[in-house]
Amino acid sequence: MTVNVQDVRAAAERITGRVRRTPVIEVSPGIVFKLELLQHTGSFKPRGAFNRLLLAKENGELTGQGVVAASGGNAGLASAYAARELGVPARIFVPVNAPAPKVAKLRTLGADVVQVGNEYAEAYAAAVISRDETDALLVHAFDQPEIVAGQGTVGLELLEQVEAFDTVLVAVGGGGLVAGIATAIGDRAKVIGVEPVLAPALHRALEAGQPVDGPVGGVAADSLGARRLGDIAFAVAQKEGIGSLLVEEEAIIAARSKLWHDYHLAVEHGAATAFAALDSAVYQPADGERVVVLVCGANTDPATLP
Amino acid sequence: MTVNVQDVRAAAERITGRVRRTPVIEVSPGIVFKLELLQHTGSFKPRGAFNRLLLAKENGELTGQGVVAASGGNAGLASAYAARELGVPARIFVPVNAPAPKVAKLRTLGADVVQVGNEYAEAYAAAVISRDETDALLVHAFDQPEIVAGQGTVGLELLEQVEAFDTVLVAVGGGGLVAGIATAIGDRAKVIGVEPVLAPALHRALEAGQPVDGPVGGVAADSLGARRLGDIAFAVAQKEGIGSLLVEEEAIIAARSKLWHDYHLAVEHGAATAFAALDSAVYQPADGERVVVLVCGANTDPATLP
Repeated sequence: MTVNVQDVRAAAERITGRVRRTPVIEVSPGIVFKLELLQHTGSFKPRGAFNRLLLAKENGELTGQGVVAASGGNAGLASAYAARELGVPARIFVPVNAPAPKVAKLRTLGADVVQVGNEYAEAYAAAVISRDETDALLVHAFDQPEIVAGQGTVGLELLEQVEAFDTVLVAVGGGGLVAGIATAIGDRAKVIGVEPVLAPALHRALEAGQPVDGPVGGVAADSLGARRLGDIAFAVAQKEGIGSLLVEEEAIIAARSKLWHDYHLAVEHGAATAFAALDSAVYQPADGERVVVLVCGANTDPATLP
Repeated sequence: MTVNVQDVRAAAERITGRVRRTPVIEVSPGIVFKLELLQHTGSFKPRGAFNRLLLAKENGELTGQGVVAASGGNAGLASAYAARELGVPARIFVPVNAPAPKVAKLRTLGADVVQVGNEYAEAYAAAVISRDETDALLVHAFDQPEIVAGQGTVGLELLEQVEAFDTVLVAVGGGGLVAGIATAIGDRAKVIGVEPVLAPALHRALEAGQPVDGPVGGVAADSLGARRLGDIAFAVAQKEGIGSLLVEEEAIIAARSKLWHDYHLAVEHGAATAFAALDSAVYQPADGERVVVLVCGANTDPATLP
């Protein structure tokens, strides 16, 4: 199971008018931010969610049972939002310890929130059972072709918006975004995944030669804490030669602070991770190299910014 | 004393490379935000400050004495930033009750901060005396031709970035930004100033037939609280027919909250004022009308956002 650039182009056509075309800004010579944090629900996730729901609708697979998903974070918000926009119900399974504000936000979007288990894996198992029982559409957080293709529309926008660029730095959780962008961009630029040292799913998969389970933690775990890279992301990473860089916790915290103080962007830790590679010089561009940095999520408590 | 579109074009050429070209985003059909809050120092003010300093430099009027300004807010930050970038000292006069974080920020930019008097007017008088004594360049917050022409470069960018638009909504304090934009855009779109009911300098000037002093207050007073519209802004307002709308305090507060929750932009109250006119339906676009909303300042305490 994989995706190709035609899938991404079809996704772009399908979701036009449903998602915002997010802007880019050249913050210093050769450094461009893609401001995907300004997307609906504050992350890139609605691109994949709309693509999955709209394709299912075309195929008659989106019924009055609506959608189910497991996530207390950005993927859940995106599924709930897309379902509401398309007029179908959403049932979102979250662990019992999911943060109250995120649960409240899901409910504001009209979702039926079910709290179950102590870990994401238990919430996901409950979502699968619910899908089997109700015929609702399961929306995965990253490992479905429609999801990866939808996220890839960010890459198509970059090709239109940025005159020339050599490198794209993208934070990696389960790998949906980085795989989508690499598929969209192909050999027109180098795509590099950036991961927290405490949540290195891509790094582990590249080392092991396949996605493997591993512990996750750290400041960015709420958005990047996938225990295992997606199979689709791994296939794309091998095909497109996606690189992997690791950044320390302190680098992520410093990058998030700088994004607020110097660039006036309020972002979550996961969304500061790609910039952290540049800011901490884990990635050092060559002379004249033009680098795009994905800034991909705004779902943070702003009281923790200063 | 006034400005014309040639002054704005010359300003744009002069400040290129010194300021960020800030992006636009169409947030819903026909509604475009100009994200000038992403400018250096978090507001549009560096455009005017760089234009004033660089023109003075060309004319040999920028000496080792550097610049003086009176402001505890965005204009002071911009003057300090521009001075630092051009390698000259900045002395910024602020009232003794200026907020400690803003004073600290000015010092971080290398400014010599002098706290004097209980009101802006006293700080301004001290700045004028300092200019007379030292031959430093006085940078006004809004009422100098170079300042208005510099702010107008926002308008030139809009003409390049937004395919077609009918209306621009701009918050008004002393009127430098709205006058600059109206000069740049001329009759290619309608420019409307939006003011808090508690700080209505443009509204009062249009009623009186000239700029007049008046009390100021309210949530946006720190950025929009000019006691009197600038003379240049008034001349431009009459020539270009700039309209004025008033918005209530509650509308500004609600708009700021919505800019965070729905659009993921952390802004100060003054920068939410233009959007407040739309959000509270004080301004109601016609069918098919395309409206640009200036989002012009990020200097806020993010802890107060939720």
